[in-house]
Amino acid sequence: MMTTQTPTHQTRPDTDVEMPAAASAAATSATHPEQLTELGEALREASGGRYGQVRALARATVPAELMVRDPAQTMDEAREWTRHTLKELVGLGMAGSGFPIEQGGLDDLGRSCVDFEMTAHGDLSTTVKSGVHFGLFGGAVTSLGTQWHHEQFLPANLAMDEVGCYAMTEFGHGSDVASLETTLTYDAQTHELVVHSPTPSSVKTYIGAAAEDARIAAVYGQLIVDGVGHGVHVALVPVRDESGAPMPGVTLGDNGHKGGLLGVDNGTLSFDQVRVPRRMLLDRYGGIDDSGAYVSDIEGESKRFFTMLGTLVRGRICVAAGAAVSSRKALSIATRYALRRRQFSAPGHDGEVVLMDYLAHQRKLVPAIATAYAHTFALNEIVERLQELHEVPEKDQLAQRELETRAAGLKALMTRFGNDTIQVCREACGGAGYMSENGLTTLRADADVFATFEGDNTVLLQLVAKGLLTGYREMWGDLDMRGMVQYAARAFGGQVVEATSVRPLVERLIAAAARKSEDETLLDRGWHLSMFTNRERHVLETVVGRLRGRAKDQDSFEAFNFAQDHVLLAARTHMDRIVLEAFVAGIDACEEAEARQVLERLCTLYALSSIEADSGWFQSHNRMSAARAKAVTAQINKLCAELRPDALSLVEGMGVPETWLNSSMLVEDPESLARWTPGATA
Amino acid sequence: MMTTQTPTHQTRPDTDVEMPAAASAAATSATHPEQLTELGEALREASGGRYGQVRALARATVPAELMVRDPAQTMDEAREWTRHTLKELVGLGMAGSGFPIEQGGLDDLGRSCVDFEMTAHGDLSTTVKSGVHFGLFGGAVTSLGTQWHHEQFLPANLAMDEVGCYAMTEFGHGSDVASLETTLTYDAQTHELVVHSPTPSSVKTYIGAAAEDARIAAVYGQLIVDGVGHGVHVALVPVRDESGAPMPGVTLGDNGHKGGLLGVDNGTLSFDQVRVPRRMLLDRYGGIDDSGAYVSDIEGESKRFFTMLGTLVRGRICVAAGAAVSSRKALSIATRYALRRRQFSAPGHDGEVVLMDYLAHQRKLVPAIATAYAHTFALNEIVERLQELHEVPEKDQLAQRELETRAAGLKALMTRFGNDTIQVCREACGGAGYMSENGLTTLRADADVFATFEGDNTVLLQLVAKGLLTGYREMWGDLDMRGMVQYAARAFGGQVVEATSVRPLVERLIAAAARKSEDETLLDRGWHLSMFTNRERHVLETVVGRLRGRAKDQDSFEAFNFAQDHVLLAARTHMDRIVLEAFVAGIDACEEAEARQVLERLCTLYALSSIEADSGWFQSHNRMSAARAKAVTAQINKLCAELRPDALSLVEGMGVPETWLNSSMLVEDPESLARWTPGATA
Repeated sequence: MMTTQTPTHQTRPDTDVEMPAAASAAATSATHPEQLTELGEALREASGGRYGQVRALARATVPAELMVRDPAQTMDEAREWTRHTLKELVGLGMAGSGFPIEQGGLDDLGRSCVDFEMTAHGDLSTTVKSGVHFGLFGGAVTSLGTQWHHEQFLPANLAMDEVGCYAMTEFGHGSDVASLETTLTYDAQTHELVVHSPTPSSVKTYIGAAAEDARIAAVYGQLIVDGVGHGVHVALVPVRDESGAPMPGVTLGDNGHKGGLLGVDNGTLSFDQVRVPRRMLLDRYGGIDDSGAYVSDIEGESKRFFTMLGTLVRGRICVAAGAAVSSRKALSIATRYALRRRQFSAPGHDGEVVLMDYLAHQRKLVPAIATAYAHTFALNEIVERLQELHEVPEKDQLAQRELETRAAGLKALMTRFGNDTIQVCREACGGAGYMSENGLTTLRADADVFATFEGDNTVLLQLVAKGLLTGYREMWGDLDMRGMVQYAARAFGGQVVEATSVRPLVERLIAAAARKSEDETLLDRGWHLSMFTNRERHVLETVVGRLRGRAKDQDSFEAFNFAQDHVLLAARTHMDRIVLEAFVAGIDACEEAEARQVLERLCTLYALSSIEADSGWFQSHNRMSAARAKAVTAQINKLCAELRPDALSLVEGMGVPETWLNSSMLVEDPESLARWTPGATA
Repeated sequence: MMTTQTPTHQTRPDTDVEMPAAASAAATSATHPEQLTELGEALREASGGRYGQVRALARATVPAELMVRDPAQTMDEAREWTRHTLKELVGLGMAGSGFPIEQGGLDDLGRSCVDFEMTAHGDLSTTVKSGVHFGLFGGAVTSLGTQWHHEQFLPANLAMDEVGCYAMTEFGHGSDVASLETTLTYDAQTHELVVHSPTPSSVKTYIGAAAEDARIAAVYGQLIVDGVGHGVHVALVPVRDESGAPMPGVTLGDNGHKGGLLGVDNGTLSFDQVRVPRRMLLDRYGGIDDSGAYVSDIEGESKRFFTMLGTLVRGRICVAAGAAVSSRKALSIATRYALRRRQFSAPGHDGEVVLMDYLAHQRKLVPAIATAYAHTFALNEIVERLQELHEVPEKDQLAQRELETRAAGLKALMTRFGNDTIQVCREACGGAGYMSENGLTTLRADADVFATFEGDNTVLLQLVAKGLLTGYREMWGDLDMRGMVQYAARAFGGQVVEATSVRPLVERLIAAAARKSEDETLLDRGWHLSMFTNRERHVLETVVGRLRGRAKDQDSFEAFNFAQDHVLLAARTHMDRIVLEAFVAGIDACEEAEARQVLERLCTLYALSSIEADSGWFQSHNRMSAARAKAVTAQINKLCAELRPDALSLVEGMGVPETWLNSSMLVEDPESLARWTPGATA
């Protein structure tokens, strides 16, 4: 486990994209180039962002067979396949970008998210297994460890010599990390940390790779030095020896069969007074010196806690990206099917009607495609921001908290949209959609857990609201209802709209729209932006008012709880504005005329769909007239019809190669179904 | 296959519930009685309806082990388990009620739906397998066949000596039954029917039991006599011999792995000029006489077609019931979990806060519980109506069409609600909800297909709209856009609200509410009823207006399609009113005071939730003021809080026994998790 390795960066000969050291010669194998429409190509280019070339390289490099798992596999078969496939993908350069350059990485956190996103186009078990090993374990060592930890553990991690797992969640506590019960107690006599599970509810559970593969765990627990608790810290603890047997004092369990992600061996871990050397503590932000005293450069347990948990940000961005890819993949399958499947004859029409021509079918798929584009731009923005902040030597704490808030919010938004959208797509394909060979049901089952792992969506939205209420000054810890209520009563100055690079453009558009009459503004971006901005501002201001009104309550839980739905609405409307502005910025950067025109339509459709969904709110808050509400619905139908002819290009532009779709019904020629062959008896 | 059997009805000794002949002595085995709260018991009683005792008997009779399948089974294991378990359940009297008395049944279609519903509390593969064999195959023989067919085929069906399948859907056409391509051609020389699959898209697919078990199929195809087509008819065709080998000319295939229902062996069937004797045609409504001429008592191909397809009504009611049970089961699991799971500490609160105390959690579960109750009453009503109409000797065609419309609508409504609700429940249980052992993910995967089988939901809602537009005079066939547009232009007289038994009460309540000022009516049932009634009427009237406006269009598809979303809204709002009125009727019949009070609250919550969801519509159509819209939301939160203390009773009242829930997390004592036991290594 303490081997080292010389970094051997390489640049792909056919591109100028640098590759992490883990990439092997296999990366030079190429798949067939796709045949895209011009518009599809242009949309893909426009939505590629800073890492567009990295995405293109993955599409050109990774063969379809690594992206498709047989859905009929048993759990054991799935685990074996996943193990094997992950190694192949790593050989193709799909991991390691986020590691320090000295250890063979590229020190590029943004790119590591894009690697995760590209892997997520295939089997999600492989993706999650990769995320646990490289992203969570490797990421914890990288960001919470020191040079010594990097040198000792990262080379083996990058080479996959020693599988790592991320032991945070316990039976008793998941999203409430501050309440974890596992203890890391310093024994000054032996200079060791004693890792212990004091209660049944402190047992680590749902830990990816714990059931079979993990040899070492990043264990979250309460650090206790000389009888004093210093809050949650992380220690590296070997959990299996080289033969795979549990280390002394470590009890390992298997979570067994799950609703999806069958290839990930989730399991349980508990510790009975397990001893590790002091230096196994990841002590970049807080540790124990030679005299046995706790030392930290960061003052205050709370601030230290959220600095350490800030490392979760990348995981949440990755989960958001995984969900976003799943939506795009499902929409690609359902749209391509809707373009070939015909049902019901219509008088005067040649043959039966193509599904995609029905208004009801367009209503299911086209606004969802628009939202998927919106999410792509919002993701590009946060991935780029993650790397920008990483590149700055002096950390801006407020900017960092804002990034974390946004990651939490996007994760909640995109995983919700993912689950809803994959289901819509499955149903839009009828009985065929239910057959595993067509790729939608496994996708649905696997992506499902994104809604609750890496932070439950409801808890994450509350975190967003807390960030807004406190100006990003207080973020982590428990829900802290008292804090939320008190902050609202005290410090909040109404500064809702933070500066973004696109903000001057947004202000200009809003101002221009304000000078027009209502009849003229339905398609006006400035009107959409002002609707989103005003909705967010009003919801937040009124939530502050309600919390203030209850600030003197004895029972701060009640004071918080009576407005919880309102708090969550504040978070959601904030995130909706962030996403719309990202879309506006993305269009602003697009130079190709036809793609730009289509993106403008999609953006309008996204904005109007959000306004339609909140039509009740806008009207009851006098932000929209009854006539305007009806006009919005009519305009959405009109936009669906206008975008219908570009349906294929729209899904091509979403960037999922057809060969990766894993859908038999798109491969079969409907006129010569193989199953029909006489003699093909069961 | 032509064995007969003497009916041996029996009455359960401990109740006065009659049992079908298939019930064996096993039916006397009993499970542990449940311990219910008084309120839970009273709610269960109030929502039991005419078949309450049948439900109670099933709860008391069927042991939990028959209701729980190991989710980790492979497809082959699942098929074997399902096969075995179905036989056990049949032995307990869970099938056969709908068969003629002469063949050992009870001639009770309503009860056969309740049998399906009770089976659906357990493994859904078993339920669907039962539904295919007894309900669809047996039902087709019963209702489309004559005395001869009954005597020849039903005893073997009831005894499960010969597994039947229902070969309707083809690759090319599912919901559009009129366009099926399989041909049933009469050969006057040999007095045989020639069953043939003329094209690849005519291959039967997704047929339950076709892959492995079926020996005989009810095959839907176009009947051709002397070169003339007479529309879709059904013939019985042996597909496997006693050894299980395909019959000559029959090609059988396996659909393989699916997104759920792994225990059902769905497969494909195709026919290469397969000959069966003429009498194998199910010819109750249309057949071929000895002279080789086509004869039918029903004039007109279209009327005959919908008379024959009317047999689908029971299947749709069963699917609605299966989805409704799945929702109730998921809500039972999630609510019971929310009552024991604590997360996040709150100042001044003892320990951490129980999930069920969070407003956001109440918002997820309590309105859904209210809707689940609403659906229970609506289902009771249609099940009872099905049997009432069956008992009437002279068929009332309009009443029959109305029943079919309602079955289609309830199926669409309840399967949509089921898929959404199970997912909400899964997420409300966090990571634990994703573990198969906790029962939610398998339920979700299995119930998923309900949204598209037995008729795609979008198509079914369109059918409802067509029924409304034509006063139930035109129902089946293709979407018939021309017909819909023309009917709207011509015959529609605005008769929206059909008479129901509860209608006089509804009218009284609406009239009383009309005399009150808006401030007084938020909780007034009359106001809720008038909101639902007016919404339905207005949507339908305006859809008629829009279709009329386009009636002269050359392109009747375009004329229909531009209003398709509006057409679907008409259907949905109609069904919403039907459901609310069923709830009102159910409360009206409840005599227990406390249960009645709780049901009133649930009904108000259901009504206000629907009004809140359509808040944009009500405001933009001047049916609700901005102030009222806000008051509705506040009142929903208040009702959640008021119902919170009764949460356990509410789920008990939904009638799913705790032992059938199949959820480890509800069995484990959270203080002593078995997994923690030292030494329990993987």
